[in-house]
Amino acid sequence: MADDALFEFLHMEIVSHVYKEHATREDIDRERVTCVSTLEAMGFRVGQGLIERFTKDSPSFKDDLDVMKFLCKDFWSTVFKKQIDNLRTNHQGTYVLQDNKFSLLTQFSSGKQYLEEAPKYLAFSCGMIRGALSNLGLEGVVTAEVSVMPSCKFQVVIQKL
Amino acid sequence: MADDALFEFLHMEIVSHVYKEHATREDIDRERVTCVSTLEAMGFRVGQGLIERFTKDSPSFKDDLDVMKFLCKDFWSTVFKKQIDNLRTNHQGTYVLQDNKFSLLTQFSSGKQYLEEAPKYLAFSCGMIRGALSNLGLEGVVTAEVSVMPSCKFQVVIQKL
Repeated sequence: MADDALFEFLHMEIVSHVYKEHATREDIDRERVTCVSTLEAMGFRVGQGLIERFTKDSPSFKDDLDVMKFLCKDFWSTVFKKQIDNLRTNHQGTYVLQDNKFSLLTQFSSGKQYLEEAPKYLAFSCGMIRGALSNLGLEGVVTAEVSVMPSCKFQVVIQKL
Repeated sequence: MADDALFEFLHMEIVSHVYKEHATREDIDRERVTCVSTLEAMGFRVGQGLIERFTKDSPSFKDDLDVMKFLCKDFWSTVFKKQIDNLRTNHQGTYVLQDNKFSLLTQFSSGKQYLEEAPKYLAFSCGMIRGALSNLGLEGVVTAEVSVMPSCKFQVVIQKL
């Protein structure tokens, strides 16, 4: 049974609902920003909730990199059914997480045809990463970038307090 | 790892988003109907999509009861991580599916305190059942009833064509 399909379908419904409710309004560019932040905020809360459950029985993390590794392996596997393929860092608070086959983009044709649709489908996940990190004590900015579907790079910049 | 938590959190976000966007409008009773049908429609499409994946490799069903049994066992297990506890039918197209511990209601206190909040959290699932059945060729009406949390009864009335 396709267990992961539930999340994928539900996510698509959310994206299309959020965009549809704003579609009738006038200032399209401003509304696009609103849609992205609505989805990002939903993702943030889901990420917070999930990490709380996931780390209930986990030992504490020894540093930021350790947190990021947990996110790339355990967290990613549970949500997206695979691990992050590549994690890079400059050791100064910036991390790049690359997923070569990001599950929320696999519905699209590979290549560049639907590239401009991609940001819609990444906002929720950016929020989810930010929420998970936030609950582990790391505040940061999370952005996503797609150059060829269905691969995706998430950039996390941790803000030092 | 709490795999089912993802669906539960995402579902809560959807419910709260749909209700919040309507909260500012005036005619509350009419808006409540709109919220329920928005959630029901989202569930319908998710149910359609899921059943298509789930039944890809399944043999065809011999009758309506066979379809309902599949829904109560395989479909329910995948989505809600448990089977339906009790299935009853009058053999004339009406089915009652009882889940004694419905996962989308387990966040609430048991008992009657939040009973009036329950319908919000059932609309999506009613739609999902209706969508799944529809894709298997059964058109029907699906309603839900809660008398004590977190148990829930779904009633399916198949419309004979």
